[in-house]
Amino acid sequence: MSEQAYVSYKAKVEAALARQLARSGICSNSVASEIERACQNVSAMEVYAEEKVIKHDVRALANVIRRKVSDKAKPYVHLTATSYDIVDTANSLRFKDAVSNVILPDLIAFEKALISISKAYASTVQAGRTHGQHAEPITFGFFLSYYVSRLGKRIIKLKESSEALTGKFAGAVGVYGPLSLIANNPEKFEEDLLSSLGLKSSEVSTQIVQPEPLTDLFHSVVSTFGILANFSRDMRNLQRTEIGEITEEFGSKQVGSSTMPQKRNPINFENVESLWKKFMPQMVTVYLDQVSEHQRDLTNSSSQRYLPELLTIFDYCVRRLTRTIWNEETAKARIKVDLVNIETNLSRSLDSMAAEPFYVLSAMSGDEDAHERARVSVQRAIASGSSFVEALKKDPELRNYYKQIPASKRKFIENPKLYTGIAQKKTLQVAARWEKRLKSIKS
Amino acid sequence: MSEQAYVSYKAKVEAALARQLARSGICSNSVASEIERACQNVSAMEVYAEEKVIKHDVRALANVIRRKVSDKAKPYVHLTATSYDIVDTANSLRFKDAVSNVILPDLIAFEKALISISKAYASTVQAGRTHGQHAEPITFGFFLSYYVSRLGKRIIKLKESSEALTGKFAGAVGVYGPLSLIANNPEKFEEDLLSSLGLKSSEVSTQIVQPEPLTDLFHSVVSTFGILANFSRDMRNLQRTEIGEITEEFGSKQVGSSTMPQKRNPINFENVESLWKKFMPQMVTVYLDQVSEHQRDLTNSSSQRYLPELLTIFDYCVRRLTRTIWNEETAKARIKVDLVNIETNLSRSLDSMAAEPFYVLSAMSGDEDAHERARVSVQRAIASGSSFVEALKKDPELRNYYKQIPASKRKFIENPKLYTGIAQKKTLQVAARWEKRLKSIKS
Amino acid sequence: MSEQAYVSYKAKVEAALARQLARSGICSNSVASEIERACQNVSAMEVYAEEKVIKHDVRALANVIRRKVSDKAKPYVHLTATSYDIVDTANSLRFKDAVSNVILPDLIAFEKALISISKAYASTVQAGRTHGQHAEPITFGFFLSYYVSRLGKRIIKLKESSEALTGKFAGAVGVYGPLSLIANNPEKFEEDLLSSLGLKSSEVSTQIVQPEPLTDLFHSVVSTFGILANFSRDMRNLQRTEIGEITEEFGSKQVGSSTMPQKRNPINFENVESLWKKFMPQMVTVYLDQVSEHQRDLTNSSSQRYLPELLTIFDYCVRRLTRTIWNEETAKARIKVDLVNIETNLSRSLDSMAAEPFYVLSAMSGDEDAHERARVSVQRAIASGSSFVEALKKDPELRNYYKQIPASKRKFIENPKLYTGIAQKKTLQVAARWEKRLKSIKS
Amino acid sequence: MSEQAYVSYKAKVEAALARQLARSGICSNSVASEIERACQNVSAMEVYAEEKVIKHDVRALANVIRRKVSDKAKPYVHLTATSYDIVDTANSLRFKDAVSNVILPDLIAFEKALISISKAYASTVQAGRTHGQHAEPITFGFFLSYYVSRLGKRIIKLKESSEALTGKFAGAVGVYGPLSLIANNPEKFEEDLLSSLGLKSSEVSTQIVQPEPLTDLFHSVVSTFGILANFSRDMRNLQRTEIGEITEEFGSKQVGSSTMPQKRNPINFENVESLWKKFMPQMVTVYLDQVSEHQRDLTNSSSQRYLPELLTIFDYCVRRLTRTIWNEETAKARIKVDLVNIETNLSRSLDSMAAEPFYVLSAMSGDEDAHERARVSVQRAIASGSSFVEALKKDPELRNYYKQIPASKRKFIENPKLYTGIAQKKTLQVAARWEKRLKSIKS
Repeated sequence: MSEQAYVSYKAKVEAALARQLARSGICSNSVASEIERACQNVSAMEVYAEEKVIKHDVRALANVIRRKVSDKAKPYVHLTATSYDIVDTANSLRFKDAVSNVILPDLIAFEKALISISKAYASTVQAGRTHGQHAEPITFGFFLSYYVSRLGKRIIKLKESSEALTGKFAGAVGVYGPLSLIANNPEKFEEDLLSSLGLKSSEVSTQIVQPEPLTDLFHSVVSTFGILANFSRDMRNLQRTEIGEITEEFGSKQVGSSTMPQKRNPINFENVESLWKKFMPQMVTVYLDQVSEHQRDLTNSSSQRYLPELLTIFDYCVRRLTRTIWNEETAKARIKVDLVNIETNLSRSLDSMAAEPFYVLSAMSGDEDAHERARVSVQRAIASGSSFVEALKKDPELRNYYKQIPASKRKFIENPKLYTGIAQKKTLQVAARWEKRLKSIKS
Repeated sequence: MSEQAYVSYKAKVEAALARQLARSGICSNSVASEIERACQNVSAMEVYAEEKVIKHDVRALANVIRRKVSDKAKPYVHLTATSYDIVDTANSLRFKDAVSNVILPDLIAFEKALISISKAYASTVQAGRTHGQHAEPITFGFFLSYYVSRLGKRIIKLKESSEALTGKFAGAVGVYGPLSLIANNPEKFEEDLLSSLGLKSSEVSTQIVQPEPLTDLFHSVVSTFGILANFSRDMRNLQRTEIGEITEEFGSKQVGSSTMPQKRNPINFENVESLWKKFMPQMVTVYLDQVSEHQRDLTNSSSQRYLPELLTIFDYCVRRLTRTIWNEETAKARIKVDLVNIETNLSRSLDSMAAEPFYVLSAMSGDEDAHERARVSVQRAIASGSSFVEALKKDPELRNYYKQIPASKRKFIENPKLYTGIAQKKTLQVAARWEKRLKSIKS
Repeated sequence: MSEQAYVSYKAKVEAALARQLARSGICSNSVASEIERACQNVSAMEVYAEEKVIKHDVRALANVIRRKVSDKAKPYVHLTATSYDIVDTANSLRFKDAVSNVILPDLIAFEKALISISKAYASTVQAGRTHGQHAEPITFGFFLSYYVSRLGKRIIKLKESSEALTGKFAGAVGVYGPLSLIANNPEKFEEDLLSSLGLKSSEVSTQIVQPEPLTDLFHSVVSTFGILANFSRDMRNLQRTEIGEITEEFGSKQVGSSTMPQKRNPINFENVESLWKKFMPQMVTVYLDQVSEHQRDLTNSSSQRYLPELLTIFDYCVRRLTRTIWNEETAKARIKVDLVNIETNLSRSLDSMAAEPFYVLSAMSGDEDAHERARVSVQRAIASGSSFVEALKKDPELRNYYKQIPASKRKFIENPKLYTGIAQKKTLQVAARWEKRLKSIKS
Repeated sequence: MSEQAYVSYKAKVEAALARQLARSGICSNSVASEIERACQNVSAMEVYAEEKVIKHDVRALANVIRRKVSDKAKPYVHLTATSYDIVDTANSLRFKDAVSNVILPDLIAFEKALISISKAYASTVQAGRTHGQHAEPITFGFFLSYYVSRLGKRIIKLKESSEALTGKFAGAVGVYGPLSLIANNPEKFEEDLLSSLGLKSSEVSTQIVQPEPLTDLFHSVVSTFGILANFSRDMRNLQRTEIGEITEEFGSKQVGSSTMPQKRNPINFENVESLWKKFMPQMVTVYLDQVSEHQRDLTNSSSQRYLPELLTIFDYCVRRLTRTIWNEETAKARIKVDLVNIETNLSRSLDSMAAEPFYVLSAMSGDEDAHERARVSVQRAIASGSSFVEALKKDPELRNYYKQIPASKRKFIENPKLYTGIAQKKTLQVAARWEKRLKSIKS
């Protein structure tokens, strides 16, 4: 993603062009080889020096390459290409490589960490929460399982959208003017050239490739970033002093506050959420850049130079989260799950969590007003600080309804910790499915 | 997309639940039929009246349905469902229907209009423009062809992302708690229920479905909107007084300005670009809504109520553009293409457009400094207001290089109107390809 | 903010124009009066019917007015004006009115509620929190005081930016063409006309007023909305099951969940945060609308039609928050502050909160490593579950340092509930200051 | 705006704290001087090295300072401060300095260039344009005058919002805990300290300053950026091949395209518009950062680290525009205004531009249907390619109306180049006003 790398990618495309010119019989193989070698030796410094004089980045690159080859080869450097044949193709190439060589492996490592922890805690009953309020029980593994699934699907989306990136070699304004002068089949020339680089060609281009494949890629990135942010938000909340269900690792020399010696802050998750807030709105720029006047204007040029930064920061966040939850060396969770606090928190609401199974089972037993009856009773219990489950057994009215419920099912009411549905099974099933799919992604 | 329709969709999901309860042997077929009938007769008015009392939209719906069925059927209304089993499923359903029944047909009609016009002008040579400056010749049909291709691909994307929308029936916090109490295979129950509605189920849910499928759908919509905006921008610019290559139809009673009687303004294209500016940033909201705390918070609820508006306005823009460029009745372009202005504009730069074919052919003839030589010469011609092509024939130095170029190729230099590469062929090819693909989308 | 109101505002501007024409001796007073009367009787329906024929909104209005006046008066209707003299002036007028008649009073009511509650709880010691972790003690009133101050300042900003809105009467493209033909001093004509409406004129206009005053107004609105969102987030978090420091009022018939009878959800605060997420990104549109080509293009027209909605929803949120925290009738807080939970939560961390006063006082007594010493000791206490304050008294090393601290100051360490700095004083001071300033705003 | 500068600003705040401690009698003057000297010698490298160990940026700074002072001074380093007393105060300070020392001077230079050019072309009649269509005549100077006014007002806004930035010294969670232990009047301590740095204090703070002053500053920046973008858009459009009213300077070695030797592209204006598209959406982040939970969470920290970049790029754009339009050395416009093209373009529509003065003067002469009559006639002339002005003289019907117009006013109809209202006067008046105001801003 560095400037040097960017220049190298552009030089790589120039080299592929030379090779394709040879393949099409337009120049000799030795000319192509000469140019290829020159392209491998281009430095960003040289190109910038030349650009300063002529104020054109791609022509600067062509001139630098030209200086490194014989007079005989010079005419074939950059021949038939317009700047954005090089720039757009190089961009597609480097973004595709960045995704496949760096981002996907990092995401997969994160996903594997999530899977491992979800399996380890598949049966750890935890309070499920909606609106910040206890709802019904889930398991800690199940909570993570939701992220395993969301993230897994994005990994696939990201892979697909990086592979859908296109290059172009249709020349100025996209009509294959120069190629039409010298090649028999301009479209095939383009297709072969791009395929030698591992890219597909754009169905029609102007001066630039169609913007949508890039737009899709960054949508994939930004929407995956949203999952990291959601996960970070949850992990922050679970660390609140009053909740304390998880704790980030804290170095013995680490300082939490410059004035409050007792502080320990969940800075890793806060940091990721903060970077998401910074980079997510950049999608607005990506959408604005879909609009380019006629066969192109340049107002997408400077703005697109910031796309690599988005990828880099996104990847940084993936790595930081992985490091925060997972210890690669010990292959164990680095995040500490506090089973005592999970249990204590759950116990606050366990009694009233019985209201849903009571309502459902009571309805099944024929009580047509089961939900309303349960609502009134449980709210009364909450208001008076008494036990709802006890009331089911003792209250003259409720007792009649409670008795209608088959004995075999009453355990879910009496002990709502059992009322976790298929949380455990689902967790393991999702883990197994994604372990398998990740393998197929890699190969 | 209306409020009544939304309530009907939710009632439809409640009906499908009742049927599934019967299919699973939990209630009788007659109970299910009774509930189904009740669901068909729910009005938005009733539901809002009830909501005012109990302050909960979905329970209000359930209560309204309950009032319309016998006591025997009452317990089965909404049984096992949590609100968002209904809401998220109903949303996926109505968005899917909106795309497939309204938006796709409208987009296809627009695409067909574009295709027809692109074919009609496949050979009309026009100045290609980059940076607002004349570049090399294209054809007017080719210009449109770029939009045919971009739009066609988005149509497919939109279709795919609408079909990827998921529903859920996993109950509160997503662990299938109630279903586990009464159904043998909760996941199969969910799958069958959703499949009866034509939807897939979410791999894991919390209180809500995973947000990414919806995020993807709206990315598809917003990125298609970007293409409409780009097209509108181009059409606006082509109507500038100084360019005048196209004209919008103008009613004989239509007033262009309340004070300038002579005015005719390209209001249709301006309008579409304006609405894009309004609705595109809503993607930020969609991304923000990916974050929902724990098993859900409600901060995505009000914000999501504005998504139907985005779809409606988007569709309005598609129709408006279609109507602006195409006359359905006569099956002809409504937009007027001004061939004289296209020709006049092109003629301003035709002479200097010869510089590219000269440089390329000269390079092919072995001139190692072809680009620089052409650049200096053509810039000199522009500065002095003389003809570059004449200079090629008369200037002692240039003449030598010009002579090296094979006679058969010189026509592209002498008459750059011929230098349109494969613009015409590509236009027709793209038109044919999309005519074929649109047919397969429809069926 | 309705469509009828919008048409009325435009008619009001047309009426003011007629009056100014009379005032400048261009038409007679009786003609002006005739037009004024006609303007008062314009209905939105009539205007839309006319617009359908001539496709121009402001000319349609002029035509409708013309039909209601004598032939003698007809020429003076809309004379010299261009559409946006009317539209932009009417917009500034209605936005200014909306702020001053509706939004400011509603914000002031909310601010007053905040002030009252902040005073009532000025001394209620509560855990201060950073990063979701207990930090040092504050008071509940002080927490609110921060919002009193932020909101108060925005109220002033909002007022200022609404009063800075400008109108224009500079005619087409802003050069006062028509006025130059018939008025002696076109700039004075404009100034007098606008001042009769209570508006200032734009220093230079094109077809439209300068966009920045409107941009500033909506920045004021959106940044105030951000404060509502922040307040809502805090109030949501304070209602978490594990924190429970406040509770929203809950109707006895109110349903929290369609399946979980026990639920009570903080929907009011969630709702406001959700609407902020929806409407805040509209600022992107406002910024995009700053760009209008040459003397104007129309791409800011449709987009600006959604600005009233933003104001309306913002005001709805202000009212909803007020209603949620404050009971107008009883003049008491509607939100329930749970003193027991506040105390219980605080007690979790009170012991370690002593670390800061110990570090500061110890440093003052000359311990050059006070922060590090405190950090190591308190972290050790936290890790072992023992008391830090006890350690200060018993640990041989710490004891020496503790003794150095003046006896009179040790109470802040032994009972950190006293360590609230000037929280109470500041709360009351801020309350008093804003009570006073609000009075001056109103008059 | 560099990292070293940021550290220096923080050290400067630490120094001011030491001095204030001395001023309040808490430490000796010699201790304060010792700390001040140490603060001047802090390098970013040292701080980052320490931060790596203790993972806290501000404590790292304090430790580095402590190492540079005697044991006697050590306790007073950072005493009573919390990290954000330092960070937020340092940020306000550096942003204020950046605006006042760099951005304002650069904006003023740009404004002066605009003023000079507007005066030079105050009388150059140019076609006014709305919707990209010719409207009525303006002058080129008047076109610029609109920017002089808009930009001038933003300069003042920017200055005001930079001066409204606040610092804080209220300690952890904002209650002045530590200061209450050792200072008599904590609020005065804060006020004096900040005033020694040239800053005001926040009325109430939490761990952090109130976010709105920073939000306002960046709104000022972003809305000024919008003006640069609008100006760039206009300047781009005026350079279109078909319009050609202005030209950017083009170096003799400058290359416009890597394949089209004839190209010259308006890259400077394109570049500025592109950077605006990139940085404007960052306001979404600024708005998101208004929300910080309780007494602060850290999710605004990383995101705020990108604010200096926004300032830097904005300033870069101001300078680039200045350089593009103005030659500092010759004190003349660098942009070339093409008087011939301006005249030629105007002549295309001059005849129909007579329609407005005809309609207005005709209405003044009593024609009650003046607008409609003018509309029908001029549209007929346009459609038939004949002269509207000729028709006024020859057409039997129109002639009667034309005769009613006073002879002295007919020149505006016969030669609409005269119909520029007060364009010239306004241009000079605005120029004079801002020349004066800029002087007062500087001093």
